[in-house]
Amino acid sequence: MIIDCAVYRDGVRETTPDDSAALDAALAGLGTDDFLWIGIANPTSDELHRIAGPLSLHPLAVEDALEAHQRPKIEKYEDHTFMSIRTVSYSDDDITTHEVNIFLGPNYLLTVRHGGPELHGARKAAESMIEHLSHGPTAALYAVVDSIVDHYEDVATELETDVQEVESSVFSAQRSNDSTRIYRLKRETLEFRRAVMPLREPVHRFATVSAPERARPYFRDISDHLSRAAESIDSIDHLLDNALNAHLAQLSVQQNEDMRKLTAGATIFAVPTAIAGVYGMNFEHMPELSWTYGYPACLAVIGALCLYIYSRFKRSGWL
Amino acid sequence: MIIDCAVYRDGVRETTPDDSAALDAALAGLGTDDFLWIGIANPTSDELHRIAGPLSLHPLAVEDALEAHQRPKIEKYEDHTFMSIRTVSYSDDDITTHEVNIFLGPNYLLTVRHGGPELHGARKAAESMIEHLSHGPTAALYAVVDSIVDHYEDVATELETDVQEVESSVFSAQRSNDSTRIYRLKRETLEFRRAVMPLREPVHRFATVSAPERARPYFRDISDHLSRAAESIDSIDHLLDNALNAHLAQLSVQQNEDMRKLTAGATIFAVPTAIAGVYGMNFEHMPELSWTYGYPACLAVIGALCLYIYSRFKRSGWL
Amino acid sequence: MIIDCAVYRDGVRETTPDDSAALDAALAGLGTDDFLWIGIANPTSDELHRIAGPLSLHPLAVEDALEAHQRPKIEKYEDHTFMSIRTVSYSDDDITTHEVNIFLGPNYLLTVRHGGPELHGARKAAESMIEHLSHGPTAALYAVVDSIVDHYEDVATELETDVQEVESSVFSAQRSNDSTRIYRLKRETLEFRRAVMPLREPVHRFATVSAPERARPYFRDISDHLSRAAESIDSIDHLLDNALNAHLAQLSVQQNEDMRKLTAGATIFAVPTAIAGVYGMNFEHMPELSWTYGYPACLAVIGALCLYIYSRFKRSGWL
Amino acid sequence: MIIDCAVYRDGVRETTPDDSAALDAALAGLGTDDFLWIGIANPTSDELHRIAGPLSLHPLAVEDALEAHQRPKIEKYEDHTFMSIRTVSYSDDDITTHEVNIFLGPNYLLTVRHGGPELHGARKAAESMIEHLSHGPTAALYAVVDSIVDHYEDVATELETDVQEVESSVFSAQRSNDSTRIYRLKRETLEFRRAVMPLREPVHRFATVSAPERARPYFRDISDHLSRAAESIDSIDHLLDNALNAHLAQLSVQQNEDMRKLTAGATIFAVPTAIAGVYGMNFEHMPELSWTYGYPACLAVIGALCLYIYSRFKRSGWL
Amino acid sequence: MIIDCAVYRDGVRETTPDDSAALDAALAGLGTDDFLWIGIANPTSDELHRIAGPLSLHPLAVEDALEAHQRPKIEKYEDHTFMSIRTVSYSDDDITTHEVNIFLGPNYLLTVRHGGPELHGARKAAESMIEHLSHGPTAALYAVVDSIVDHYEDVATELETDVQEVESSVFSAQRSNDSTRIYRLKRETLEFRRAVMPLREPVHRFATVSAPERARPYFRDISDHLSRAAESIDSIDHLLDNALNAHLAQLSVQQNEDMRKLTAGATIFAVPTAIAGVYGMNFEHMPELSWTYGYPACLAVIGALCLYIYSRFKRSGWL
Repeated sequence: MIIDCAVYRDGVRETTPDDSAALDAALAGLGTDDFLWIGIANPTSDELHRIAGPLSLHPLAVEDALEAHQRPKIEKYEDHTFMSIRTVSYSDDDITTHEVNIFLGPNYLLTVRHGGPELHGARKAAESMIEHLSHGPTAALYAVVDSIVDHYEDVATELETDVQEVESSVFSAQRSNDSTRIYRLKRETLEFRRAVMPLREPVHRFATVSAPERARPYFRDISDHLSRAAESIDSIDHLLDNALNAHLAQLSVQQNEDMRKLTAGATIFAVPTAIAGVYGMNFEHMPELSWTYGYPACLAVIGALCLYIYSRFKRSGWL
Repeated sequence: MIIDCAVYRDGVRETTPDDSAALDAALAGLGTDDFLWIGIANPTSDELHRIAGPLSLHPLAVEDALEAHQRPKIEKYEDHTFMSIRTVSYSDDDITTHEVNIFLGPNYLLTVRHGGPELHGARKAAESMIEHLSHGPTAALYAVVDSIVDHYEDVATELETDVQEVESSVFSAQRSNDSTRIYRLKRETLEFRRAVMPLREPVHRFATVSAPERARPYFRDISDHLSRAAESIDSIDHLLDNALNAHLAQLSVQQNEDMRKLTAGATIFAVPTAIAGVYGMNFEHMPELSWTYGYPACLAVIGALCLYIYSRFKRSGWL
Repeated sequence: MIIDCAVYRDGVRETTPDDSAALDAALAGLGTDDFLWIGIANPTSDELHRIAGPLSLHPLAVEDALEAHQRPKIEKYEDHTFMSIRTVSYSDDDITTHEVNIFLGPNYLLTVRHGGPELHGARKAAESMIEHLSHGPTAALYAVVDSIVDHYEDVATELETDVQEVESSVFSAQRSNDSTRIYRLKRETLEFRRAVMPLREPVHRFATVSAPERARPYFRDISDHLSRAAESIDSIDHLLDNALNAHLAQLSVQQNEDMRKLTAGATIFAVPTAIAGVYGMNFEHMPELSWTYGYPACLAVIGALCLYIYSRFKRSGWL
Repeated sequence: MIIDCAVYRDGVRETTPDDSAALDAALAGLGTDDFLWIGIANPTSDELHRIAGPLSLHPLAVEDALEAHQRPKIEKYEDHTFMSIRTVSYSDDDITTHEVNIFLGPNYLLTVRHGGPELHGARKAAESMIEHLSHGPTAALYAVVDSIVDHYEDVATELETDVQEVESSVFSAQRSNDSTRIYRLKRETLEFRRAVMPLREPVHRFATVSAPERARPYFRDISDHLSRAAESIDSIDHLLDNALNAHLAQLSVQQNEDMRKLTAGATIFAVPTAIAGVYGMNFEHMPELSWTYGYPACLAVIGALCLYIYSRFKRSGWL
Repeated sequence: MIIDCAVYRDGVRETTPDDSAALDAALAGLGTDDFLWIGIANPTSDELHRIAGPLSLHPLAVEDALEAHQRPKIEKYEDHTFMSIRTVSYSDDDITTHEVNIFLGPNYLLTVRHGGPELHGARKAAESMIEHLSHGPTAALYAVVDSIVDHYEDVATELETDVQEVESSVFSAQRSNDSTRIYRLKRETLEFRRAVMPLREPVHRFATVSAPERARPYFRDISDHLSRAAESIDSIDHLLDNALNAHLAQLSVQQNEDMRKLTAGATIFAVPTAIAGVYGMNFEHMPELSWTYGYPACLAVIGALCLYIYSRFKRSGWL
């Protein structure tokens, strides 16, 4: 579905029809500083191939843009640059990524979005910036990529918040089984990593070599945001590994405590059982049995022993 | 066994006999854009040496092609490029790899397959593409390698599915001993890794330096698929490591639960035993013994205590 | 808030008003070896933009300086170099970092501090060194960065002390739950790492390539301090990982000990219970029961057995 | 001990006496394609220094060759190349390595072996190949190194077999203490690694830069074998790490099972003890005691309860 | 404290007074192949600054040499090279390092030692070698560094011996708590690593680029020794990690054994207690009680059961 198709002349937007002929005409009529911006969402093969002709897109890149299982990358073709990037969103311990494929030509920008949030905001941002920037499609590319990459850091922050939640749970006095959630967060971090990491090197190269001189600081800024997101991911990864190990240690500590309680409890009950057993024996000559206060004395001894053992265990922290 | 031997003239196939003399003739008769494609499966030393002469293959490469224990690699010899690659298939937690050795000459392509699936599909694909491509053996090479590497991602996906199965089992309420399967998947992932990883760098180099200019985007595409498979493998590896750790944590949690049940159970039975023991003592002066309702009162007390302890443990989750 | 604004002429300080016009005048009046040093703390957008004009700071760098969520970095713009660095302080197992953003122009140094300790000391240090150094803003930059990086090593030393505390606790005879603190230190080390590591490579590059020839040994010195701090961090990281593992081993040892005590205790009490049970049986023909010394003999046997078992366990270290 | 000393003229062997004067003469009489091959085993300082003179070996290299504690390496001296490599053999979980030091001059090859298997086979192999190769000492070097490196893969295969044995033991139903053997294999793998890894980079460099053009594919082949051995080692390492972790998990599973058996057993015995205790009480008014069938009824109840509990535990897998 | 100060003329030593004037004179009087060697131990600031003038040492390097908290490094200044290296000694599981700072000028060598063993041996070694070497301060530098680095390997060997001791303890039948010692060795290995690792790259660079041509094989030799020490450290590190894991596995195995002993013991005692409990019941109609051989039969049954259970557990290895 073609979402939007507009020519930007000196930073001013003119909407254009999106059929092949009109595209040809629009491209032919572009001045040196003008450019065409086409936005497509969930494209069919027909839609994309109709546009591919006038823009002379490389057939492999068109296939890639249609497939939507690309590894994040930037690739230079003869006539244009192809970029595959992923929007990332996070909710309820779940990372969702959607692919955005972008063609950057000398006088056009084509964005192909597969699901995920709209790029409308990026277009608005780009339009407001176009006057300050080198008036070209690179500025529009910057706006789109910047809006996507900025969101990476938000997601990283949310992940970090959830990691803190897990930490609190691991180290709380309450018993909890946190390994499931730690594993889940680890899994999502891995998915996040696969969206961010492959992009670092090509964006860095684009920012320092391929981008037009005046646009470089801007793409360097994006490269920096990517690095920050990547460091957050590494840091989250490490924290989760450590949280799982700490969880294991906590479980061990808790088991130790239970073991001691078991020992203490068993001992406390063993005492009356053993003593009562002794006075339950049927020997004929057991003088204590005929004492008037034998029974209460026996109970008192049992009670005293139990109390003594209990207080000993209490004091040494076993109960 | 020589499977197929054909000359492609302007993209059109002409089958050729496969004896040495016919090969010499065929090679001599090749035009600038024509090339010869020979496919061999499970070669005997004789078969391969018979072909090696006319194609002037390097003896070391011929040895490598016969041995079928090569590390995946691409090597340039004076007259041709030698490539060793592995087909990978996966079923029932078991990775199987088979070697395909390929000689790419200026006007021929020789594929030597050791077991594994047929390359017939690749040949068909190549034949359908030859017209669009620079009509040469590189196009055929692309078709063969692409069909093999594409399958890597399928295998990675199947592995990921099995990892998810293991995860479900690890985190299910049911007790299970998943370490055996986790280990098995880890082992297969290692074998998969050894088929994929050594190929990444040489394919990347081939795609950016050695391949003819027009074919580069195609091999870059293969390089990209390899990277994606490699990332999947890394990701599976990490998940399995974490799954094993999480499994250990689960086992610890389960042991804690058993320990608590043991403690609770022991306590519940210790109470009647101790009390009964007391009233089993043979003291002469035990007033409770002669009470009319002594016995039922005693039973009631025992019952009440057991119930109280039981409900306490139940409420605190120990039972 | 503009903290300080001064012109250094041949190493001598002259305070200057900080409004835009005065800045323009001050910049215009600078001789070849003079330079302007402006210090700002917690800047508002207005304050910074007022200064940005006369110094012709790049708008992206100005945004970065205002935001205060930068990754430590050094970036070259056309007219100046932008550096983002973090002051690090540590107390009570808690690392706090504050951002200092620095603009180094041909004849000015602008430091923008977001919270954290004052840079007054660095200014004093710089003033005392200016005569020895190439009289320029690079000397001032060195003084500021040196005072910040020097503190990294102090923090690393304090962290190492705390790690030693944890070690003592882990390996002490007393039972302790150290995983919480180990995890906390690990977390803080991660934060510290993110302040230090990204700076290593750009400072090294600045010290060997970008800095003026005479200043290079000084920045190489800073680069060296960074490397030392980085090695300390790596080392702390490793120690904490190992401490957690050792803690797990200690817990396992302690659990083993408890288990043995439980076994020993249960055995000691099981003996009198079993024997007493036997003599509590109601068989009519139990000759021992009518012996005069049956009861004391029985008690003696029980006592002797308990003592024997106790001493056996004691000797083998189970109790 | 000098083992062998021969001049190869056009690939034909002529044995030579090994005293200094004869060496000088032999070297002086060598044609452009001839070379001298000397083999020494367990050299004394005298032997080696006697040869060092005529061949003008660098004193440092001679010291290295005598000491036999070299790190595997290839080093270029002005007049010759010095190579230190290790033969590796494996039996009974034990890796043994022996050093072979090699001097490659323009017209001689000197091999100095410290213990380990003879290089006779390599010499025979070289002699059979010399005619096909550039007739020079490099061909002889290839033969020696190839015979050593080929054996690395055999050793790796044997290690892999032993790892599989350990795996079977870890995952077998039988209880076993495999950590000792896993550790031992790990230790041997480390020693193997130290023999193989340092050689990879210099052999690769030798194969691509230093070796004569025609010999390069041959050394590239060796480099490839090294890579394969190295990958096997990495893979074995990973498997052993995982086997140890899986072993821990197995131990945990076994302990859980024991714990449950303990719980089940304790419960089964606690029931008759508690009930019998109750009917052992001495209350005067316990109507059941005077029932004719009180005793058998009681036994029946106890038996039924025990059976019920037993079957419950059996069904839930605790016994 | 200035230890020694001598001029070496054509390899012959002439002792010189160490005051500033004498130094100036000595330096002025040096021929092209002569050089001055000054050795200082635990320098005061005055001592070093007195010497710094005539040798025109860079003030930063002088500060570094005084401070004695340098990271091992080699740094080129305009007029000289500054090297910081550490002597390492090991005893009783304790690594001690001392700093040696070295200035290498065109015609002088200045060694500044902070504690640690004397360098006298190195000086003697250098004096005996000077005649064979390019007569200059580089030869002296080689002697000093070689004597320090050689000791690294001794220390590594001693560490390896201690690791083997720990291994024996871990895998011995006797119960031991080895985690403390493993941790301690790990910690010392880390300190050792920090003394060795930072030196590898600069020494390698010095050996291949900066050193005079004739001295390179000698420094390459040092570089090689460093690599060997580094590999030993890596290997020790790995072994310690694995030893800790194996220790955990051993603890688990031991706990399993204790658990089984507990289960077995509890069962053996539970049998007489339960049976005796049954015959302790007060039912009126219990025919066994009045049998003449009831009691001995009961004892026999109890004894037989206990023996049977005992032998069962014994046979299955639980006791």
